[in-house]
Amino acid sequence: MNFELSDDQKAFADTARQFAEQALAPHAAQWDRDHHFPVEALREAGELGFCGLYTPEEDGGLGLPRLDASIIFEELSQGCTTTTAMLTIHNMATWMIAKWGQAETKERWCPSLVTGEKLASYCLTEPGSGSDAASLKTTATATDDGYVMNGSKVFISGAGSTDVLVVMARTGAEGPAGVTAFAVPADAPGISYGKPEEKMGWNAQPTRMITFEDVAIDASWRLGDEGQGFKMAMQGLDGGRINIATCSIGTAQHALNVARAYMQERQQFGKPLAAFQALQFKLADMATELVAARQMVRLAASKLDNKHADATTYCAMAKRFATDVGFNVCNEALQLHGGYGYIREYPLERHVRDVRVHQILEGTNEIMRVIIGRRLINDERDVL
Amino acid sequence: MNFELSDDQKAFADTARQFAEQALAPHAAQWDRDHHFPVEALREAGELGFCGLYTPEEDGGLGLPRLDASIIFEELSQGCTTTTAMLTIHNMATWMIAKWGQAETKERWCPSLVTGEKLASYCLTEPGSGSDAASLKTTATATDDGYVMNGSKVFISGAGSTDVLVVMARTGAEGPAGVTAFAVPADAPGISYGKPEEKMGWNAQPTRMITFEDVAIDASWRLGDEGQGFKMAMQGLDGGRINIATCSIGTAQHALNVARAYMQERQQFGKPLAAFQALQFKLADMATELVAARQMVRLAASKLDNKHADATTYCAMAKRFATDVGFNVCNEALQLHGGYGYIREYPLERHVRDVRVHQILEGTNEIMRVIIGRRLINDERDVL
Amino acid sequence: MNFELSDDQKAFADTARQFAEQALAPHAAQWDRDHHFPVEALREAGELGFCGLYTPEEDGGLGLPRLDASIIFEELSQGCTTTTAMLTIHNMATWMIAKWGQAETKERWCPSLVTGEKLASYCLTEPGSGSDAASLKTTATATDDGYVMNGSKVFISGAGSTDVLVVMARTGAEGPAGVTAFAVPADAPGISYGKPEEKMGWNAQPTRMITFEDVAIDASWRLGDEGQGFKMAMQGLDGGRINIATCSIGTAQHALNVARAYMQERQQFGKPLAAFQALQFKLADMATELVAARQMVRLAASKLDNKHADATTYCAMAKRFATDVGFNVCNEALQLHGGYGYIREYPLERHVRDVRVHQILEGTNEIMRVIIGRRLINDERDVL
Amino acid sequence: MNFELSDDQKAFADTARQFAEQALAPHAAQWDRDHHFPVEALREAGELGFCGLYTPEEDGGLGLPRLDASIIFEELSQGCTTTTAMLTIHNMATWMIAKWGQAETKERWCPSLVTGEKLASYCLTEPGSGSDAASLKTTATATDDGYVMNGSKVFISGAGSTDVLVVMARTGAEGPAGVTAFAVPADAPGISYGKPEEKMGWNAQPTRMITFEDVAIDASWRLGDEGQGFKMAMQGLDGGRINIATCSIGTAQHALNVARAYMQERQQFGKPLAAFQALQFKLADMATELVAARQMVRLAASKLDNKHADATTYCAMAKRFATDVGFNVCNEALQLHGGYGYIREYPLERHVRDVRVHQILEGTNEIMRVIIGRRLINDERDVL
Repeated sequence: MNFELSDDQKAFADTARQFAEQALAPHAAQWDRDHHFPVEALREAGELGFCGLYTPEEDGGLGLPRLDASIIFEELSQGCTTTTAMLTIHNMATWMIAKWGQAETKERWCPSLVTGEKLASYCLTEPGSGSDAASLKTTATATDDGYVMNGSKVFISGAGSTDVLVVMARTGAEGPAGVTAFAVPADAPGISYGKPEEKMGWNAQPTRMITFEDVAIDASWRLGDEGQGFKMAMQGLDGGRINIATCSIGTAQHALNVARAYMQERQQFGKPLAAFQALQFKLADMATELVAARQMVRLAASKLDNKHADATTYCAMAKRFATDVGFNVCNEALQLHGGYGYIREYPLERHVRDVRVHQILEGTNEIMRVIIGRRLINDERDVL
Repeated sequence: MNFELSDDQKAFADTARQFAEQALAPHAAQWDRDHHFPVEALREAGELGFCGLYTPEEDGGLGLPRLDASIIFEELSQGCTTTTAMLTIHNMATWMIAKWGQAETKERWCPSLVTGEKLASYCLTEPGSGSDAASLKTTATATDDGYVMNGSKVFISGAGSTDVLVVMARTGAEGPAGVTAFAVPADAPGISYGKPEEKMGWNAQPTRMITFEDVAIDASWRLGDEGQGFKMAMQGLDGGRINIATCSIGTAQHALNVARAYMQERQQFGKPLAAFQALQFKLADMATELVAARQMVRLAASKLDNKHADATTYCAMAKRFATDVGFNVCNEALQLHGGYGYIREYPLERHVRDVRVHQILEGTNEIMRVIIGRRLINDERDVL
Repeated sequence: MNFELSDDQKAFADTARQFAEQALAPHAAQWDRDHHFPVEALREAGELGFCGLYTPEEDGGLGLPRLDASIIFEELSQGCTTTTAMLTIHNMATWMIAKWGQAETKERWCPSLVTGEKLASYCLTEPGSGSDAASLKTTATATDDGYVMNGSKVFISGAGSTDVLVVMARTGAEGPAGVTAFAVPADAPGISYGKPEEKMGWNAQPTRMITFEDVAIDASWRLGDEGQGFKMAMQGLDGGRINIATCSIGTAQHALNVARAYMQERQQFGKPLAAFQALQFKLADMATELVAARQMVRLAASKLDNKHADATTYCAMAKRFATDVGFNVCNEALQLHGGYGYIREYPLERHVRDVRVHQILEGTNEIMRVIIGRRLINDERDVL
Repeated sequence: MNFELSDDQKAFADTARQFAEQALAPHAAQWDRDHHFPVEALREAGELGFCGLYTPEEDGGLGLPRLDASIIFEELSQGCTTTTAMLTIHNMATWMIAKWGQAETKERWCPSLVTGEKLASYCLTEPGSGSDAASLKTTATATDDGYVMNGSKVFISGAGSTDVLVVMARTGAEGPAGVTAFAVPADAPGISYGKPEEKMGWNAQPTRMITFEDVAIDASWRLGDEGQGFKMAMQGLDGGRINIATCSIGTAQHALNVARAYMQERQQFGKPLAAFQALQFKLADMATELVAARQMVRLAASKLDNKHADATTYCAMAKRFATDVGFNVCNEALQLHGGYGYIREYPLERHVRDVRVHQILEGTNEIMRVIIGRRLINDERDVL
């Protein structure tokens, strides 16, 4: 048991921090305001390897453990939450294509996905199936030379600006066992995109509905076997949950740093805010919760790296805990800024708006509790 | 002791509810999106008496108790949080002019303020004095025929679109005893307005900095006596805190209603969300906290109406408690909506953004704790 | 709407406060230590009318509204939580006998119950039926001249030291409609008592299991009609929940008062604890929550007095909220005392142990959420 | 970075678990009830090395890292919280004697302390100095051949049943720099012991006041140099805080295990408690918080082992977080048991009573916030 970063991990973190400070942080507020999707910044991130962090080396990725990826994403999200979150989704989808794609599909997409030249979206959620993902209704009906896809997906990050869609669709009976995954070119005939959703935050990436109308799907686009798609989607999400939890703690760290600095500068009643004990206690609790959240995320990443039998449960715990802590820390940091926390001139209100969705997506925190509870209740093994 | 609304109070509530449903609710989302200040709706509200609810009848107001005003504002805020909040600030400023204005000032402003033809802003906060309001630096230096005002005020609701400014300025020594209040025409020479602040919410009302540069102040514009301004400002805020707390509970009630309806409709795992026990418990807690918050607000309003010796403390308690509950209920309602809670198509994310500032303005919730704590600690009287 | 106590209510409160200070407070610690059931104090309370507060006047009670009873119990519980809690249970059972007893049963018990000469227990819970009270298994099988009762009841307050038992037993089919209530003499042949439970708190009253073995039940002991017993039990509990919630807020008020005084005396780092802002904030929050809890309890009592259609829901809300607040306030007061809070020389640790059970009995706070949630979900009426 | 236990750590944990199950768990309830100090069990623990876990090997201890000690204490505290807590205090005091004792003092005490034949107490707190430990008033006035000690210490665990006292006393000026530590034989002439404090919990160990009246102190009993005592006391507490936090998580783990089992057995409304979603969610949150708390404790232990510059801050964070989580988990487990949670037949109420003091001693959780806040505010280094 060892809690220190290795030299490699420190080096990764340094690189990521520099990139975050130079390429993300100076623009994040503007991207939010303009609802600008910074494709160029994602490409730059790709040049540093950040688009295929845990994609195997043989597929062009860095082949890093999830733990190392989390360390990197944490630094990046201190620069821009939304862009980093998009990057994590791209990493997840890229990893899925690399892991389960057929040879020609991998050849087609991996080289340009790992560099960020091309971008990927993850398409699971549907209008009628949010938490109950396995009830999805989009169909991929077998044809002579492949499938034809019909249905729609909602809340798809990057949709309309990405190049390939990892789509979970029904090829068989109801339930999870009837679901198959596909890597579908984003511009395949029959695919149409809704208008960008107007969201509370995550404005630096477009979120759209995608409609599939008789989209011809080549058999080679299938990922893995028929009926394995739900399982793959969930495996993707194990890592996805670590990633999104990471984006919460990185953002919260930034909020905490900003709040600390503000408390040292801002004078009220003849002394800095930092001199008020109640505010010091608040800051102390924020820091404590944040350290705990970071440990949870790294623990879960490590469990996933080690293929621990309870990795999914640890990922669910980390996602629940760290996204809740992340929101609370950002929200308290906003409060510590008083009126200045509420305006866009300071980053706090953006941080609150951005991390809020982390408690919802990639499985709501309620679904995380279902996963954890099920493990505790149904299982004869020891409590974790 | 009696917890039921009187027939009059029910009638007021009905009128307000109708107005909210017809004149506010249908437009609230659009006003937020467009950053539109609905002056027309405020005028309509004025026609119903909502611009001078507790302004004395002899000054053209309805002369209602604060309790009745709270009942009305609660209904209104279910239609639009921001517009109602602006209305409460206008009511507070109007009441101050009516209560402490000199005869000609009252004649000049009250008739058109109580009808909403003209609007008023409350100008206390400065860049360097937020929570420490008594340290304000804007000066009103005595001249032969009045004063000359210099300084700046920030976070002024309605600024740039209102007609009269209730300004607290320093006419004497440092500290609260050196502060005097004035009713200054918004277009007096030397007043300039900053650009609208970009805020997290409260977008349906402009918030600007105001700069006073050698503004000639007529002696008749002074409210009450020199040195009484800080006391007046605080008395205004006692009511203002009830009002803003009211806007939180009205908004939270709307969020709760919407969440309840959504839970009954939305199906997941083959049954409505309403069938899931953990979500039922969540809803039960939201409703319970909200009922408690409403009681606190009404208790405080009643104490203010009765000029109870602890009225200020009760107002501080109500503001702290109800604005925290209001935020939490809205935020939980957002969560119950999953991804739909995060987009503007549903009102939840707007509610969260709007009520967030209630925990900050008219005295942050930290300052409320200072007020309550001081009463408990310094006072020999019984705990409340 | 009016939040002030009437003169009568103030007079009741004064009497109760005096009694609490003189007859309860000086002994409460000792009673806890010795596990002494202060029958004598209950009799004295009876002399003041406190044993039949809401029992109708024609049955010898004071016939007070529940609101007035709550005001009285709140004062009493500041003197001794456990004794007051026992008194509230006695009041509930006495009221049930007065309300639903047959003439001779009322004549037999009411006169001595309202004076506290005799004491009553409420017997609903069974080993296998706690929250699921309607599944109770104790039977009262009809015989020629009455019933014969078999079964057992657990966690019965006062058991072994009371004179009459209000017992809910099954006379019919499964479920709530098969339950009937009886007023059974505590010494009826076939009744046996277990040893006193060793509890965390509530040590000033004995809690025992009661076993009924072929107990002959006279038909005249039946309360109301067959099959009405569950409904009666629940009606009794509506008031019982207000009462127990009241005991939590009275105890919390005492804890808060003690903590405030301690903070003013205790010196650390050269100044009184009261001078530390973080502790002031803590005290402010305790007081605020407590005021809110008191309002909830009084609101619910008032709804019950007015036979409001939602009285049961309000009682559930008040019980949930006030017993949680009560525990938290006592627990924070303990913390503010540091090591002194943990020892019996100070009352805090006793308060924590005593109020802890209020979150459990007369319907756990989880069952309260079930009641509130059901009303919100199943009902077409507005949210409260 | 590596989150898995080593084989050695697993072996230690197994040994400790066996000892806890066989020598502690079967007796813990009885020891609590009888207020019995199980000296014999402590001796048995000593035979396994548990009395000198991190005392250096050259002084007879196991010389383990704090991390390993925490792993062991966690298992032990699942058997008996109070006995393990006493053991941790003994370990701390033993380590202090070994680390700073003069040769003859080490020879005199270490061999029998590491085996548990003799026991040690840690004497810092005084009636007037709790959180403000540095203001202690017990004096050790220099004499020709040593010192003479006068004063009193309160809340001393084990006092009256231990053999050596590590006493912090004032040899110099006011403040921390005037404090010196001594290893004083518990039976030295002039030492008298108060009656055992009656506590909420921790009943399996005596807590007494100790009075020093002209106690002749041999110069050889001094630990380290004059004026170093406060620093030593604080260094001892860094580890002590990890230890006490560990006792909270071990106890909470036991409470969680018991609650899980109860939920699977206990039937209500025709199904096990485990089938109720709201209770599952509760259990899930308890487990999640507990995993986070354990990580925090191990992180802090590791920082202490590595002599990290922020070790003290990490220890404070771990103590604050884990003792709060520990209390909450035990308290929720009690609630999940309903009425059965409140009686001594089940261990839950004992767990709640026992862990409650962990939030207070070895520095209250408020003092932990002071330590953390000071590091964040005063320090130019990055937030942790």
